[in-house]
Amino acid sequence: MQDSFYALGFDFGTLSCRGVLIDLKNGELKSSATSAYKHGVISRCLEDSQTQLPIDWHLQDPQDWIDSMAQVCHTILSESEVSPKQILSLGTDFTNCTVVPCTATGTPICQLDRFKNRPHAWPKLWKHHSAQKYAEEIEKFARENTTWLKKYFGNSVSSEWLFPKVLQVLREDPEIYSYADLFIEAVDYIVLYLTGRITRNIGLLGLNSFWTEEHGFPSQDFCKALDPRMQNIVQDKLQGDLLEVGDYAGHLTEAAAATLGLSPHTVVASGHGDSEVTACGIGANEVGSTILVMGTSTCHQMLSDQLISFEGLCSVTKGGMLPHLYSYEAGQPATGDVFSWFEQLCAGGSYETIAKNCGMSLLEYLGKQAENLAPGASGLLALDWLAGNRSVLLDYNLSGAIIGLNLHTRVEEIYRALVEANIFGSKKILENFESHGLTIKKLYAVGGIVEKAPWIMQLCADILGKSIHAPTFGHVSARGAAVCGSVALGHFDPERGFSTFSEACKTLIPRKMRLYEPNLERTEEYAELYSLYSEMHDIMGCQNSIMRKLRNIRQRKMFEEET
Amino acid sequence: MQDSFYALGFDFGTLSCRGVLIDLKNGELKSSATSAYKHGVISRCLEDSQTQLPIDWHLQDPQDWIDSMAQVCHTILSESEVSPKQILSLGTDFTNCTVVPCTATGTPICQLDRFKNRPHAWPKLWKHHSAQKYAEEIEKFARENTTWLKKYFGNSVSSEWLFPKVLQVLREDPEIYSYADLFIEAVDYIVLYLTGRITRNIGLLGLNSFWTEEHGFPSQDFCKALDPRMQNIVQDKLQGDLLEVGDYAGHLTEAAAATLGLSPHTVVASGHGDSEVTACGIGANEVGSTILVMGTSTCHQMLSDQLISFEGLCSVTKGGMLPHLYSYEAGQPATGDVFSWFEQLCAGGSYETIAKNCGMSLLEYLGKQAENLAPGASGLLALDWLAGNRSVLLDYNLSGAIIGLNLHTRVEEIYRALVEANIFGSKKILENFESHGLTIKKLYAVGGIVEKAPWIMQLCADILGKSIHAPTFGHVSARGAAVCGSVALGHFDPERGFSTFSEACKTLIPRKMRLYEPNLERTEEYAELYSLYSEMHDIMGCQNSIMRKLRNIRQRKMFEEET
Repeated sequence: MQDSFYALGFDFGTLSCRGVLIDLKNGELKSSATSAYKHGVISRCLEDSQTQLPIDWHLQDPQDWIDSMAQVCHTILSESEVSPKQILSLGTDFTNCTVVPCTATGTPICQLDRFKNRPHAWPKLWKHHSAQKYAEEIEKFARENTTWLKKYFGNSVSSEWLFPKVLQVLREDPEIYSYADLFIEAVDYIVLYLTGRITRNIGLLGLNSFWTEEHGFPSQDFCKALDPRMQNIVQDKLQGDLLEVGDYAGHLTEAAAATLGLSPHTVVASGHGDSEVTACGIGANEVGSTILVMGTSTCHQMLSDQLISFEGLCSVTKGGMLPHLYSYEAGQPATGDVFSWFEQLCAGGSYETIAKNCGMSLLEYLGKQAENLAPGASGLLALDWLAGNRSVLLDYNLSGAIIGLNLHTRVEEIYRALVEANIFGSKKILENFESHGLTIKKLYAVGGIVEKAPWIMQLCADILGKSIHAPTFGHVSARGAAVCGSVALGHFDPERGFSTFSEACKTLIPRKMRLYEPNLERTEEYAELYSLYSEMHDIMGCQNSIMRKLRNIRQRKMFEEET
Repeated sequence: MQDSFYALGFDFGTLSCRGVLIDLKNGELKSSATSAYKHGVISRCLEDSQTQLPIDWHLQDPQDWIDSMAQVCHTILSESEVSPKQILSLGTDFTNCTVVPCTATGTPICQLDRFKNRPHAWPKLWKHHSAQKYAEEIEKFARENTTWLKKYFGNSVSSEWLFPKVLQVLREDPEIYSYADLFIEAVDYIVLYLTGRITRNIGLLGLNSFWTEEHGFPSQDFCKALDPRMQNIVQDKLQGDLLEVGDYAGHLTEAAAATLGLSPHTVVASGHGDSEVTACGIGANEVGSTILVMGTSTCHQMLSDQLISFEGLCSVTKGGMLPHLYSYEAGQPATGDVFSWFEQLCAGGSYETIAKNCGMSLLEYLGKQAENLAPGASGLLALDWLAGNRSVLLDYNLSGAIIGLNLHTRVEEIYRALVEANIFGSKKILENFESHGLTIKKLYAVGGIVEKAPWIMQLCADILGKSIHAPTFGHVSARGAAVCGSVALGHFDPERGFSTFSEACKTLIPRKMRLYEPNLERTEEYAELYSLYSEMHDIMGCQNSIMRKLRNIRQRKMFEEET
C-alpha cells in the first residue's frame, strides 16, 4: 500500500491552539486536537500574582502557545498513527495583532528573569485596548501628515495595531522598548520559533502595521515625529524577511522538530491571521467573496481586485487574505464575548436549572426562547459595543447600551436584542462596503457562532437580506493554515504540494455548505428597527458622546482606586 | 381602670390592605395587620381566565378590597382584644387615581353578571397606563382651550388620571360608559361602601380629576368637545358631596359595621390618597415640607402657601395633602417595581445561592455589593423609566435604558446604576420645584424602600445633597388615615377627637426619625454623573425619541400577535 502524505495546520485562537492533520490527496481530516492555553488571557495580574494590570490590559504567555502546540501535535501523532515523515508541511495562523517583544534570537523578553514582573515585557493580545490614547495620537498625526492612512487604513488607527502597542511600551516603560531587539506579530514569532528565521507576512503587516506595497513601512521622519526615540524602529526592531501568504518560511529546526515530534524536513509556511486564513479554509477565492468570521469577535473580510479608499474600514491590503487580491477588512471586537458576558451575568439562574433539565447550556436555552420572538415585540434595542466599536466608528471608548426596557422585559428578550444589535452592526459594516462600490457577490459565515447557533445565522440572513453560505465542516482556520502549508510545500514538491491556492482549495476543501436564505418579509420588518438602530448608533457614536464621557470617569475612578 | 379609645386607619396599597389601631390618647400602636388582595393586580387576563388584556392594562377586583379590609379588621379586633365600641373613628387612604365604574347604589358594575367578562367594567388601577393616547388627546385640547391646565396641572395630562381613563371606557366600550351611573375614585368607593354616602375628596379631585377650587370640574363645553357623549358627565356620573381631608363622611352602615365587626357608631372620615396621606402620617405640616414616598413608585410632594404654575409637575392642589395648604405633586411611576423587575431578571442565580447562605434576599445581597461601589466606577448610567416617566417629562411611552455596559459589568453594578437613575430622577423633579421658586425646607422620605434599604437613603442624601428625615416607626400611611379619622371624630367629640391636623399629629405621631446627612464630597462626585444623566434624559426624553418609536413598534406587534 502506498503511503499517504499529510499537511498540518495550527490555528492559534484567543484561548487555545487547534490543530488538524489533512490528507494532501483529498483533504480528508485524518485527526484534530485542541489544547487550551494554561494561562488563557492575562488581564487581572501577572503570573507572579502580585503585579496588577490596569483596565483593558490583555496579555498572553508565549510559552503557553508553544506548550499547547506541542500537546496538540503529540495528540494528533498518537491518534492518527501517522509517521512524522509522512507529514510534509505545516502552516499556522494566529490572532492579530498580537505583539511579542523579543531578543534578537527570538526569546520573548518576558521570559527573562529581570523583566518577568514588568507588564510591558509580555505579549499584548489583539484585544489589549489600553493603547487607545496612543492610537488616537498616531491617528491625529497620520491624518495630517500622510496619504497612506486614508488610502489604505480607512483614515483611522486602531488601538489593536502594532504601532499604538509599541508606542505604549515606549512611553510607559522605555527600558523595555529599548531592550527589545524585535517587536513581532505572534504568528511570526511562532514561525521564528519553528524555523529560526525572522519573517513577516506582508498581508498582516498591511493589515495592522502601516505597511503598504506602495511605500513599505512608515518613513523615518514619520516614526521620529511620533517619538524621537522611535526614529529607527523599522530597521532596528521591525526587521525580517517579507513574505506573502503561502510562501516558504523554512524547514523545522532540529529543536522545534524534537519538541513537536515531527521531522526536520517538514516545510513551514509563512504565518497568517486567524480570521484572514478563513478564505483558504473554505476555498473562497473569488472577487466579491465576503466572509463573516463570527467567534468571540466578528471579522468582516472581502476580496476584491480594486483598490478603493474609504473610511469606516480597518484596512485594505494587497495579499491580506490571498496573494495578489485586495482584502478589505472591518470588524466588531466582541460577538461571542458579549453573549458569554450576558450568560455569565444571568448564570446559575432559574433559567439555568431549566436549561440543565433540558440538557442545554444556559445560552442554548435562552437562544431557544429568543429564537421565536417577533422582531420589535420586546421593544428593546441594543448597542453591542461592550468592547468598543471597531467599524465603522473605530472607537474603543464606546460601550454597550440597552434601551426600551420595561417591567415585563425578560432575559431572553435582552439576549435577542444583543444578538440583533450585533447583526445590525454587521449590516452597517457591509452597507459601508457596498456604498463605496464594493459588490458582495457571495456571503460566507464561519466561526464558533455559526456552528453553535443556527438561529443566529438565520436571523443574520433575515436582517442582512442576503443568502449566507456556512461551511458544515469544522476546523476552518486550522484547515486554512494547512492549505497555506501545502502551497509552501508546492515550491519544493509540486507533486504533493500545490502551486496555487485555487488548486490547493479545490483538492483540500470540502464542498459542504449550509445555505441560509433570507426571509424577505422579516428583512422588511427589520428595516424599521434598523433605522432606529442607526439613529442610536449616530447619537451614541458621535465625537463627544455620553459614552465617551462615562468612560473617562470610569478610567479616572479605576486609577484613583489603584493609587 | 378607665377605657381607652382608638382610631382605625386603613391603607389600601397596590397589593394589599394594611390597617392600624392607635390609641387616641397618645398615638400608641395597639395593633396592626395586613391582607394581600386575592387577585392582586389583574394584567394578563380577567378572572374568567379567558378574556385577555392588552399591553399596559392593570385592573383590580373591588371585592378583594372589601375582603382584605374585613380580614384586617377582624385580625386587629381579635389580637388587640379591644371592644368595637372603643373604636371611635375610621380613616382610609387608597392608591390613586384608581377608578371604579358603579351603579347608582354603589355596586361596581364588574360584579354584574352581564358585564363581568368586559375589561372596561373593572376598576382601572392607578398604573393602568393604556389610556395614554386619550391623555394626549385631552392634553392637546386642554392646552389650547383652557387656562386651568397650565395653572394647576403642569400643562399636561397623565394617563393615570380620571378623564383619560373614563374617555378610554367611552371610546372602547361605550355600553359600559353609558351603563355606569358613577365613575368614582376607589377610596371614595370604599367610603361609599362604609357609609352609604357618595362623597369625593376635593384634594384628590384636584390632583387627578381636573377639579379646582376656582372652577370646579371642567365645563360642559369642555366635556362635550372631548366627546359629545361626555357632555353631561359631571352631573350624570361624577356626582357626590365634595369633602376636604379630615371631613366627616358618615357613620358606618349597619351592613358595613357587621362585615367589619365594628360598631355603627364609628365615625368615617373622607377618603385620602395613599401618598397624600403621608403628611398626616409623619406630622409634616409646615410650608416647605417635602416628602418622598418611595415604594413601588415614588411620589414627590411639597406643602406650600403659594400657588405657582409651572410645567413638569403633575398638579398643584389646594387641600391635596392637608386642608388649606397647596400641595405640589410629581412622581416616578416605578421605583421598587424596577428593583423587583431586576431581582426577578437575575432570580435564582448563583448570587441568590450566596444570598441565601447569608440569610438575605437577592436584592439585599446585591444592595450589600452595590453599596460600596464608587460613583462612576462601573461606567454605567441608566434611565429607570421602565414604566414610563411621570415627571418632569410625563410620557408613559418612554422606557428604561442602560448605557456604558462592558464585558466586565457585573450584576451589582447594574443594580446600583438603576438605583442611581431613580435618585437622579428625583433630583430632576426637586430641582424643577426649586427653580420655580418653591423652597424645600425639610425633606422627608417614607415608604418600603426607606424601611428596607438604608444604603439607598444615604445615596439619596448624597446625590440630592440634602439631609433626609426618615421615620423609624412603621405603617405611616395607615397611621395617617387614622389621623384623618381622628380629625373627623373631632367634629362630634372634641374631647376624644381633634379639631386640627396639627393637634392630631402632635398627639398621635411619634417623633422617631432617622437623619441621613449628605456626604458632600459624594454630592460633588455625583454632580458630573448627574450632568451626563441630564444629557441622556434630554436625548431620550425628547418629543420624537427613539424610545417612543420603539414603543410604537412594540405596541403594533402586540396587537398583531393578538389578532
